[in-house]
Amino acid sequence: MATTEIFLKMTFDRWNGSIANWDKILNDLTDETLQKEIAPGKNRGIYLLGHLIAVHDEMLILLDMGEKLYPQLYEPFIKSPDKTVNQLPPASELRSFWAKQCEVLKQKFDSLKPEEWFEKHTAVSAEDFAKEPHRNKLNIIITRTSHLQYHSGQLVLLK
Amino acid sequence: MATTEIFLKMTFDRWNGSIANWDKILNDLTDETLQKEIAPGKNRGIYLLGHLIAVHDEMLILLDMGEKLYPQLYEPFIKSPDKTVNQLPPASELRSFWAKQCEVLKQKFDSLKPEEWFEKHTAVSAEDFAKEPHRNKLNIIITRTSHLQYHSGQLVLLK
Repeated sequence: MATTEIFLKMTFDRWNGSIANWDKILNDLTDETLQKEIAPGKNRGIYLLGHLIAVHDEMLILLDMGEKLYPQLYEPFIKSPDKTVNQLPPASELRSFWAKQCEVLKQKFDSLKPEEWFEKHTAVSAEDFAKEPHRNKLNIIITRTSHLQYHSGQLVLLK
Repeated sequence: MATTEIFLKMTFDRWNGSIANWDKILNDLTDETLQKEIAPGKNRGIYLLGHLIAVHDEMLILLDMGEKLYPQLYEPFIKSPDKTVNQLPPASELRSFWAKQCEVLKQKFDSLKPEEWFEKHTAVSAEDFAKEPHRNKLNIIITRTSHLQYHSGQLVLLK
């Protein structure tokens, strides 16, 4: 196996494993439990779920893979802190957004050729990319895997 | 920059960034706060700190980089759940273990040649590695970065 393929496998094993782990935690929680705070005074489970969907939607833009699926989630789940927005979508709806989004991301990720992962993402200029070639599309997967793990360590506290 | 070097930079930027983020959270917490549970009935901050040191010590073995620095932490922080061991080391001692270990790991990681990161780690047989070349040393860094992020998302709740 060529080095590039090995590296892609390591990166996507980690991404897919992190998604699977989040799903396992999420599926063990009821919609009611998602309304609880992960710790006193901290974010609620439902906020973490909406936040992840909104952040993963931004990945579509960064990876130049089309439009966001749920642009309406940016305002309540990225721009606004938890418990400052009057009405959030119900947990059941967010669960279905999440499942659909995971499918779409998987399909789009699978369609990229190995070398395309080493092209620049959309938030870096061609000039900066020439000097900093690690600011590529694959790095978006790597950093968002970290982000997903960070919040998985929080959601699990509701179990 | 060669593809291998770009991979290594992406991986170690994430590892180093995750260590720096943990340090930032940890340095904002007093020894007293570390004695608190991250959420009611869950692990205490001090347990997470000891757990990370113990897990990172295992990396030395997996990466064939010598002996553990603090083998005495395996029993209380990996084998035993929190609040089942009578006396844990004081937080001040764990903080100094952590700082020292980060230095040692950095030095050892820096000493490896790029191609050595793609050699097998010690927990995989030569036979299995021939079929699964992604089970290399670099993958240990990638998976432990996920682990570190997971627990960082928990420690931050004590702030």
